[in-house]
Amino acid sequence: MTDLSIAIPDSFVIDSQSLLDKSMKISQLARACSIFRVRNIFIYNDRSTRCEPEDRKIIKTILEYLDAPPYTRRQLFPQLWMLKYAGMLPPIKSPHHKPKISLQDIEKGDVRVGVILKKDGVWFVDVGMDEPIRYSGTISNNKIVTVKLISKYPYLTAAEINKDSLAGYWGYTVKFSSTLKGLLDSRKSNYILLTSVEGRYLTDKFCTSFFTDQIKSIKDLLIVFGSPKNGLKKILAAEKVEISDFPFVINMFPDQGTQTVRVEEAILGTLAIINQYTIR
Amino acid sequence: MTDLSIAIPDSFVIDSQSLLDKSMKISQLARACSIFRVRNIFIYNDRSTRCEPEDRKIIKTILEYLDAPPYTRRQLFPQLWMLKYAGMLPPIKSPHHKPKISLQDIEKGDVRVGVILKKDGVWFVDVGMDEPIRYSGTISNNKIVTVKLISKYPYLTAAEINKDSLAGYWGYTVKFSSTLKGLLDSRKSNYILLTSVEGRYLTDKFCTSFFTDQIKSIKDLLIVFGSPKNGLKKILAAEKVEISDFPFVINMFPDQGTQTVRVEEAILGTLAIINQYTIR
Repeated sequence: MTDLSIAIPDSFVIDSQSLLDKSMKISQLARACSIFRVRNIFIYNDRSTRCEPEDRKIIKTILEYLDAPPYTRRQLFPQLWMLKYAGMLPPIKSPHHKPKISLQDIEKGDVRVGVILKKDGVWFVDVGMDEPIRYSGTISNNKIVTVKLISKYPYLTAAEINKDSLAGYWGYTVKFSSTLKGLLDSRKSNYILLTSVEGRYLTDKFCTSFFTDQIKSIKDLLIVFGSPKNGLKKILAAEKVEISDFPFVINMFPDQGTQTVRVEEAILGTLAIINQYTIR
Repeated sequence: MTDLSIAIPDSFVIDSQSLLDKSMKISQLARACSIFRVRNIFIYNDRSTRCEPEDRKIIKTILEYLDAPPYTRRQLFPQLWMLKYAGMLPPIKSPHHKPKISLQDIEKGDVRVGVILKKDGVWFVDVGMDEPIRYSGTISNNKIVTVKLISKYPYLTAAEINKDSLAGYWGYTVKFSSTLKGLLDSRKSNYILLTSVEGRYLTDKFCTSFFTDQIKSIKDLLIVFGSPKNGLKKILAAEKVEISDFPFVINMFPDQGTQTVRVEEAILGTLAIINQYTIR
């Protein structure tokens, strides 16, 4: 299975007038990434335009809120003004959003997301049960971790595990990166797909062989999106980078019937198409 | 070019709590259909569930409002409570949403959408210019029509034409149909694709040959979607029809990372994928 990452500009919500509008746009992004099992969302600094400096923080916070299992949210996200509308957004229901079950029903080996907390000098993890469970792993108060439950009730202990070692999808991670150039340079060894209305069609011969033959064996694919204001050509030009230096610049929506495709629409549509090629 | 139609249930907005929620969901549908040049949107009666009887009217009215060029709206859509939030929805900007230009700049042969109106006993059509233009065609007050402009200013006349005769995309038409069975029966001679989480993958051999070879030569393709509550299997079962009677029952989102894919997401994603196969 190919690990998917996407990159979006910090100007992603620049066309949204209110916090409610921004929240809904971010919610569509969170759902698209979850449906198609995106592992990393990079937020890069769009040098081609000036946006509210707090927008990148809003994007990251709402994305992380939506990816966090509901039972972890009260502890992880204190009453923040930027989460005012987050509670009414449609839920993601990813595999790591597990329901509350009774402590007795936990099976040895179950994997759950939890929040680390200290009680009477001892470290516990709240995994959404009636009470927190004894924890062993790296320690940091109010940190979100993935744990494996060792032994059964009443001797339950939770040991931290690396979520990347899990076979199935286990949510996404949100990361800030500085410039787009910086991000692309840092991932040179991996495949990068730039989306652009001026790009090649996926049905172009050059692309077809890549997508039908090679893509399945790629470990890591990064798909990059532009902003509501400027496409990637302009965003890269603002960093003195030529988009033509990249082999895979692709127009995913040939013959589009509208003047523009919104970024959140482009992300869902692109991921839906790529998913057809990456499944085995 | 394949003509695309989609069918959605009248329960499409059954999971939306408020008129604002419904409006936004319908807006996403309108944009997805416009991006991928859908010509017909059929709203069928979902017999598997009970929804607000006014919902089908809300869906049709907001869809038609968004497809109508902005300058026609005041006349076509009087102050309706169901359009309360329609003005703040993102615009579609389809090719038939032409900007206002001066009468002098109109070229002979220009095609525009207009609204028929009567002035001093003579029929005119308002095509978004400074003043309405003399009209020849079938007559009906406050009706939306597509016209070709004959001769130049100041002798402008507008003659009705059939929008289906135009080469490019010219918006969608919304139609009520009774039951889903009724709709499917009426289109037996055309290709029908039913979307279902229990369907085959598009990468399945049976589908591949159809999609890579045949689909381009199909004149008319209908893609059918289920509701937020029930999939097509259940909706058809409520009409005593077996979904297995249809050859093309397809799961467009193999390995989905979320418990469910929302109908508006399924529509955008499905159309994005199909578009890759239907472009020439």
